[in-house]
Amino acid sequence: MSKDGYNPALHHLNRRLRLAVIGGGPGSFIGGMHRQAARLTDCYDLVAAAVSTRSERAFEGGKALGLPEDRIFNDGLELIKTEASRTDGAEIIAIMTPNDSHFLYATAALKAGMDVICDKPMTNTIEEAEKLVGIVKETNRIFRLTHNYTGYPMTRQARAMVEAGEIGEIRLIQIEYVQGGKADESTPDPQGTNAPWRYRTDKGGPSLVMGDIGTHAHNLIRYVTGMEVKEVAAEAGAIVPGRVIHDYTGALLKMENGARGSFWVTQAAAGVENSLQFRISGTKGSLEWGQEIPQRLFFKPLGRPAEIRTPNGPGTLPLSAYASHIVAGHPEGFPDGFANIYRDAAEAVAAKRAGSSPRPEALTCPDEKDGLAGLRFVQAVLKSSADKSAWTEV
Amino acid sequence: MSKDGYNPALHHLNRRLRLAVIGGGPGSFIGGMHRQAARLTDCYDLVAAAVSTRSERAFEGGKALGLPEDRIFNDGLELIKTEASRTDGAEIIAIMTPNDSHFLYATAALKAGMDVICDKPMTNTIEEAEKLVGIVKETNRIFRLTHNYTGYPMTRQARAMVEAGEIGEIRLIQIEYVQGGKADESTPDPQGTNAPWRYRTDKGGPSLVMGDIGTHAHNLIRYVTGMEVKEVAAEAGAIVPGRVIHDYTGALLKMENGARGSFWVTQAAAGVENSLQFRISGTKGSLEWGQEIPQRLFFKPLGRPAEIRTPNGPGTLPLSAYASHIVAGHPEGFPDGFANIYRDAAEAVAAKRAGSSPRPEALTCPDEKDGLAGLRFVQAVLKSSADKSAWTEV
Amino acid sequence: MSKDGYNPALHHLNRRLRLAVIGGGPGSFIGGMHRQAARLTDCYDLVAAAVSTRSERAFEGGKALGLPEDRIFNDGLELIKTEASRTDGAEIIAIMTPNDSHFLYATAALKAGMDVICDKPMTNTIEEAEKLVGIVKETNRIFRLTHNYTGYPMTRQARAMVEAGEIGEIRLIQIEYVQGGKADESTPDPQGTNAPWRYRTDKGGPSLVMGDIGTHAHNLIRYVTGMEVKEVAAEAGAIVPGRVIHDYTGALLKMENGARGSFWVTQAAAGVENSLQFRISGTKGSLEWGQEIPQRLFFKPLGRPAEIRTPNGPGTLPLSAYASHIVAGHPEGFPDGFANIYRDAAEAVAAKRAGSSPRPEALTCPDEKDGLAGLRFVQAVLKSSADKSAWTEV
Amino acid sequence: MSKDGYNPALHHLNRRLRLAVIGGGPGSFIGGMHRQAARLTDCYDLVAAAVSTRSERAFEGGKALGLPEDRIFNDGLELIKTEASRTDGAEIIAIMTPNDSHFLYATAALKAGMDVICDKPMTNTIEEAEKLVGIVKETNRIFRLTHNYTGYPMTRQARAMVEAGEIGEIRLIQIEYVQGGKADESTPDPQGTNAPWRYRTDKGGPSLVMGDIGTHAHNLIRYVTGMEVKEVAAEAGAIVPGRVIHDYTGALLKMENGARGSFWVTQAAAGVENSLQFRISGTKGSLEWGQEIPQRLFFKPLGRPAEIRTPNGPGTLPLSAYASHIVAGHPEGFPDGFANIYRDAAEAVAAKRAGSSPRPEALTCPDEKDGLAGLRFVQAVLKSSADKSAWTEV
Repeated sequence: MSKDGYNPALHHLNRRLRLAVIGGGPGSFIGGMHRQAARLTDCYDLVAAAVSTRSERAFEGGKALGLPEDRIFNDGLELIKTEASRTDGAEIIAIMTPNDSHFLYATAALKAGMDVICDKPMTNTIEEAEKLVGIVKETNRIFRLTHNYTGYPMTRQARAMVEAGEIGEIRLIQIEYVQGGKADESTPDPQGTNAPWRYRTDKGGPSLVMGDIGTHAHNLIRYVTGMEVKEVAAEAGAIVPGRVIHDYTGALLKMENGARGSFWVTQAAAGVENSLQFRISGTKGSLEWGQEIPQRLFFKPLGRPAEIRTPNGPGTLPLSAYASHIVAGHPEGFPDGFANIYRDAAEAVAAKRAGSSPRPEALTCPDEKDGLAGLRFVQAVLKSSADKSAWTEV
Repeated sequence: MSKDGYNPALHHLNRRLRLAVIGGGPGSFIGGMHRQAARLTDCYDLVAAAVSTRSERAFEGGKALGLPEDRIFNDGLELIKTEASRTDGAEIIAIMTPNDSHFLYATAALKAGMDVICDKPMTNTIEEAEKLVGIVKETNRIFRLTHNYTGYPMTRQARAMVEAGEIGEIRLIQIEYVQGGKADESTPDPQGTNAPWRYRTDKGGPSLVMGDIGTHAHNLIRYVTGMEVKEVAAEAGAIVPGRVIHDYTGALLKMENGARGSFWVTQAAAGVENSLQFRISGTKGSLEWGQEIPQRLFFKPLGRPAEIRTPNGPGTLPLSAYASHIVAGHPEGFPDGFANIYRDAAEAVAAKRAGSSPRPEALTCPDEKDGLAGLRFVQAVLKSSADKSAWTEV
Repeated sequence: MSKDGYNPALHHLNRRLRLAVIGGGPGSFIGGMHRQAARLTDCYDLVAAAVSTRSERAFEGGKALGLPEDRIFNDGLELIKTEASRTDGAEIIAIMTPNDSHFLYATAALKAGMDVICDKPMTNTIEEAEKLVGIVKETNRIFRLTHNYTGYPMTRQARAMVEAGEIGEIRLIQIEYVQGGKADESTPDPQGTNAPWRYRTDKGGPSLVMGDIGTHAHNLIRYVTGMEVKEVAAEAGAIVPGRVIHDYTGALLKMENGARGSFWVTQAAAGVENSLQFRISGTKGSLEWGQEIPQRLFFKPLGRPAEIRTPNGPGTLPLSAYASHIVAGHPEGFPDGFANIYRDAAEAVAAKRAGSSPRPEALTCPDEKDGLAGLRFVQAVLKSSADKSAWTEV
Repeated sequence: MSKDGYNPALHHLNRRLRLAVIGGGPGSFIGGMHRQAARLTDCYDLVAAAVSTRSERAFEGGKALGLPEDRIFNDGLELIKTEASRTDGAEIIAIMTPNDSHFLYATAALKAGMDVICDKPMTNTIEEAEKLVGIVKETNRIFRLTHNYTGYPMTRQARAMVEAGEIGEIRLIQIEYVQGGKADESTPDPQGTNAPWRYRTDKGGPSLVMGDIGTHAHNLIRYVTGMEVKEVAAEAGAIVPGRVIHDYTGALLKMENGARGSFWVTQAAAGVENSLQFRISGTKGSLEWGQEIPQRLFFKPLGRPAEIRTPNGPGTLPLSAYASHIVAGHPEGFPDGFANIYRDAAEAVAAKRAGSSPRPEALTCPDEKDGLAGLRFVQAVLKSSADKSAWTEV
């Protein structure tokens, strides 16, 4: 994957990491993405899987991944237990199950001495999130959260430019995450116990739009600015008549340094594909980026012409160069950004297991503390929304 | 100006309208824009001017406009009085003075039997705005407000597509108006009685950012959607340390039909030029437009490919065609959009003075009722902002 | 029109220039554009017109322009003769007739002591073009040619950046002018003596696509690079079956300094609106511009990030600032670029008539020598095309 | 890789294909890209490598790929011989050596019963290319050529739309491939026997720019239009003073149906990254695409609004859907397009080895006949260039 041939696992351990996956059965978009990300890095051997809790699906899915029967499971906890008992067992677990079981599997894996890569949102409740942070600390293992939009070369370039002071003190933030997938009103929310898990608040969490994409948007501005959201005045709800789950959230933000922000996420904007966009303005300039054309970062310095920054183009900072794997002008995409999370995880895990030091560029990867911050943000949004959108501490 | 040679003044009256201007002295950006707009339409003869209250500036400015001495004034009220007494006197007055005097001159002109084109915001206070609406009604004259962004062919196309039902029932609105002109923190606000009028709340109004650009943003979504903002949860303030006037406003919106919106305006976003942008999503699709490239309107219908609509391109509706004066592919700009306001005014005024019927395409032009709606919105924003951003009726 | 209130005619002469137009009757796109351009500059009073050779059309058209009967003509030569005899007669003539009569009217006007603004192509034949250059010299009058794409702020910025050495020695040029207006094959060329003049080679010239848009493309690269095309290997023809007039030309170019270029013009590219685009690469960087979004110039310096230059934005050079009439972020369009030609003409004419010196920024405007260069280029293209596309001197 | 979990190798053979690579040593951009492409598809196990002819580099490179010592070679022919003798030996060889050795290794592999994936250009001479086509036929094996730009979802969508008649009969083609990598004139061409192979015509072929990128441009228009270039009027040369190898080619094209085209490739355009772009116009509309933002295809139908087509967006045709591996709005990039070539190869090879039928969507992948067409085009370009750019048959 790397343009310079650097492979974190081979570098630190002289071998690939043994990976097992829980969740991501046949037809799952995100399951395929996780496994492809692992392959792209060339840092992992997939050794075991429990892609479904339904036996047949689990078996078929595992076979399609080329696994032997004794490494295929239909129960994540059993996978963890069995693999932990093998000398050649999985040492890192990737979790891509419905949100309500992230905590269960992550906790079990950590306690079994495994490292964890977990899909977002980290958990459905603050209580679980706080416990998980504690368990990561106690077990002294690595936990990484796939807020994958932080893996794009140009979001990393944005963070690095902020850190380098290129836009000065941050004053104003705009973040939107707008999709159209839930815009068609002719197909109301699936109901009942057979409904997909996302539509059930016990499985999908208290606010679907916030869990699905709102936490991505929140995490991205924290990632780029290096600051926490301190207060929020928000409204979350369903704009589509008759819908139960949330399909939009609007919010005003106060950052810890006093900067102000606008936050807008929805899955009901007809015809829009996947528009995650930010504009971050500081005393010395603004940065603008959009996920649909991720290979462009616009830098508008105060008093100088606007610039178009590109992956590995002129002015690329080390954090971005580490995440850009081809020469300038050859766009990488969503899979490559996602894989950068897996590569960061491999760097951290392999270095730890080797007793060596990871490269600093790999350490900006979202982890359990970012997961907890996300849950706190969701909680504050819902509290403000219930309180006439009054300003509420995060 | 018109591609088909249609000239509203010549059509209805067989002559041009006699125009006088108040305000817009040497160095005024908006003054030049108003006069150029009038010229572009070819519907007006500029016959008198009071471009400044300072005698020397007023005289120099008037001479530069090619006016004879007896049609140059340094007092707008005297201009109105004198012109009203001439048989060849001005019949329409364009007002581009500091905000606090719009009411004074508009009222005098209307009462003198003149029609009025007025810069925005219409007035600084609701009280004045309400009175002005009454006086327009009593005098039965024409009043037009230069919310010029409604004059672009593609904002008119957007309105026409909404009216035609092409995006269905509106659900979600995003509007931003972001500039960088007040981002440089090394030049704090001018202070004292010599400060430019904009920086004095008695002259410039209670919220500079709202008067300058917030009312444009608010008016534009009303123009395109045909709906009123019903409630707002907002914060207005100064993000630049030590600044007194407002330089940003963030707000959440509820529209009269229940649609939700995000509103963000600021003049302190370093490096940004003049980014007025909207996305309006309905049950059948979304419309996206940005002022910096006004010759493109993006239409994203649900379940069909996104389209790029252009002035006079395929699919142009009559309201937009009326405002597009060249063949497709030849971009018009800000001056042409501004001139469309003057052309609409000429259509309304000339038809009225001729006792004939104006073309319906000219009647979407912002007027005194739109001005009042703007003031009400500013008031609600400030009230909500003072009340912990609680939802507040407009 | 000017952001600083500068009016060339008032500045040099303390009055406006008396303008007459020949051609541009009702329904003519370019006629309206010329007259609007004159109005936009505020440098001209339109005093006489012969918009058509058909009496009724001429009279109606003249009336619509608000002219008195004795200043309305149906014969351009008579207009010139009559106006020349009046003390308040036209002193500058704008010609927008079919191409084959440009020479006739221009010559007559120049010999009558008038200055001339002429539509392009200057003439249909090299012989006429060469004679015209001589007559301009003999009469010592001003002649300006409306290659209006040189009037955009960003094409002027490009020229100024080239002159300032910002892209170094020019090496490579790409120019395209692609339209779709003649793509519909269901409407074959109009035939016979009633065909529009453009489709008759005696009226429209030997190569319709070259006269209509090829000369624009050729002139634009000469304008920006400051260099002549020295040799051409070309093919011109009709791509639409059964078409007689030319609808495309492809060519390879050698510039006088040895730079190479690609040239592509057509009016038969279905669905394309008006795509005049260039990329000019020198030893130190490239410049890219496209007419459909004329408010953006892309500068790609060697080894530094690409920049987006905007009218009156940071880095604006004087030649471009002179042609940009509003603050940054407020786009001007085709009419404003066209008007810049008229403003340049007014600067040159007024200064000459006043015996004063014109501003240097006004002197890059295309003139009779550029017109001749265009004709020579067309001739070389046709010669090469007839000679198996062999390299041919221009 | 596939959004539907389809894996060609597992589908047809129930196992992955055994792949060996020749070339692509440490530091090679294209070597890493090939191996990553193989991984991305999940269709291959890399079992052997000869990444360099220098022993140490070959060994180090092989170890970094995780290969056992007995599967690491420093001689491609020995790799082929040894692997062919093993029952678990490589069955498909990927060749990414300097151009002059493609023929040697491809021939040996084919004769050893292996299938081949080969980097472009296929060979340096027509003679080799013609022989290779014969050998593929004789050996009845699969040969695939990594003209990877045909692997993007939107170039495949373009081809599918052309096939479906959506733009009608093709009339006009514009293709450019413009890079800036050889623009810096301060670093003249490396000279002597230690020069990189690309700069030596015996290794890199007769025209560097044509071999490197010209064949990509030529292949892409053939891929999308389904037509051959029939005649060319061209010039190839070095624009940078003192350069020996070619750094630009300009050409006019005649396609087999009479359509005309413009062709422009260079590696000396300062500041440009990797601009491979086309516009293809037919009687019913135009298609426009550029490699730097490959996730957008612009469709401009005659008389209807222009459309923006996206991977897996509305209107996606099967050929494109087969090459798009995520839901709409999540951009894939260069690596994914490159991998689609490997996936197509896997489909063809696995089906053949299984005796089953490959999916038709996999069969548009460039092969040995496309390689031969490329060599013929290069030859015609050079012949025309030597003949004063006269029209020359391909």
